[in-house]
Amino acid sequence: MDIVEILNRRYSTKEFDPNKKISQEDFNQIKSLLRLSPSSTNIQPWHFIIADSDAGKERITKGTQGFYQFNSEKILNASHVIVFCSRTSADDDYMQHLLDKEDKDGRYPNEEVKQMVYGARNIFADMHRYDFKDLQHWMEKQVYLNIGNLLLGVATLGIDALPMEGVDLKALDEEFELRQKGFTAVAVVALGYQGENDFNAKTPKSRLSEEEIITVLD
Amino acid sequence: MDIVEILNRRYSTKEFDPNKKISQEDFNQIKSLLRLSPSSTNIQPWHFIIADSDAGKERITKGTQGFYQFNSEKILNASHVIVFCSRTSADDDYMQHLLDKEDKDGRYPNEEVKQMVYGARNIFADMHRYDFKDLQHWMEKQVYLNIGNLLLGVATLGIDALPMEGVDLKALDEEFELRQKGFTAVAVVALGYQGENDFNAKTPKSRLSEEEIITVLD
Repeated sequence: MDIVEILNRRYSTKEFDPNKKISQEDFNQIKSLLRLSPSSTNIQPWHFIIADSDAGKERITKGTQGFYQFNSEKILNASHVIVFCSRTSADDDYMQHLLDKEDKDGRYPNEEVKQMVYGARNIFADMHRYDFKDLQHWMEKQVYLNIGNLLLGVATLGIDALPMEGVDLKALDEEFELRQKGFTAVAVVALGYQGENDFNAKTPKSRLSEEEIITVLD
Repeated sequence: MDIVEILNRRYSTKEFDPNKKISQEDFNQIKSLLRLSPSSTNIQPWHFIIADSDAGKERITKGTQGFYQFNSEKILNASHVIVFCSRTSADDDYMQHLLDKEDKDGRYPNEEVKQMVYGARNIFADMHRYDFKDLQHWMEKQVYLNIGNLLLGVATLGIDALPMEGVDLKALDEEFELRQKGFTAVAVVALGYQGENDFNAKTPKSRLSEEEIITVLD
């Protein structure tokens, strides 16, 4: 597998073939990609709402009414649609929960190391909470890192994707009662296989030149 | 290649072997991974400062003095170190520049489509600039998406990585005069090959359970 070739070939799919479904085996891989993504201090501040049924996708189109109508058909014709959600808090209950899970998974040789990691994660979260005052954006940045991981991951599986910010996130929060559960919608990614007439499949990719975006130091 | 297996095996490398260097061929792939990453509306709001020499890496350790000292050795022993930078503006000169590049790359069949994309990108940027008032975070979120793309990409090349938020970003802005150039440092990723005694290479990965983080709709 040539990863650059795969990345070069992937693109924002504008039309999905409604008859092509992602296999259960690939869907299991997709769930693992979401779960195994790295995040700063392993904080994993996310939840994923996934629709593969018509009824489920219909619910996600609550986020594509009015101004965002242009994205409705893509959601309905995709095989699977993921709503990426961010946590809205990182309170001590959650910090302890993460620590306990890491402990159970065998990451701590002793209590001292465990408490050191607990302290370090809190130092980073508090920096964003109190000093930079951007805790929410910091958590959402980890969700975007997960999206980057997912988009490349599914491309290696030969699955097409359309990442969408063009959705009414508040409407999705309401539809799935995300805020009551401590989450808020950040973006939506539709997955499936390109339709025959997707103009964007044939349009060349454009990126700024290497000379413009990269400086290699002497 | 099993992408989940690769993702499962990657980890935050805490000790690099200072004698192992990334090949020129792999470095070319890394540059392509950075360049080809997707971003919302293809806005590509980024620049990458890369050090592969001792002198270059020494300059990046200007960001790991004092409190962040624990990251200095990792930077110095890595093969290549990337400072991920975000743009600090998305003014009309830049928007026109993106549009011209896309036009040259063959994305526009006619002027009408070109102007439609120009308008759409501005609608999204203005939403963040004026309505959400989070243009800077929005651009930085795209940089995080790029980091997620890069971390999985290098893992497929068998390259170890350490993503670091624990750096003095202001010191890096000063060292590389980033602000004067319209950029600001966001995070650092060190790349190379693990050292023999990296405790984290042998520590099991921990992630929240699939049941906790994923909801599949009926």
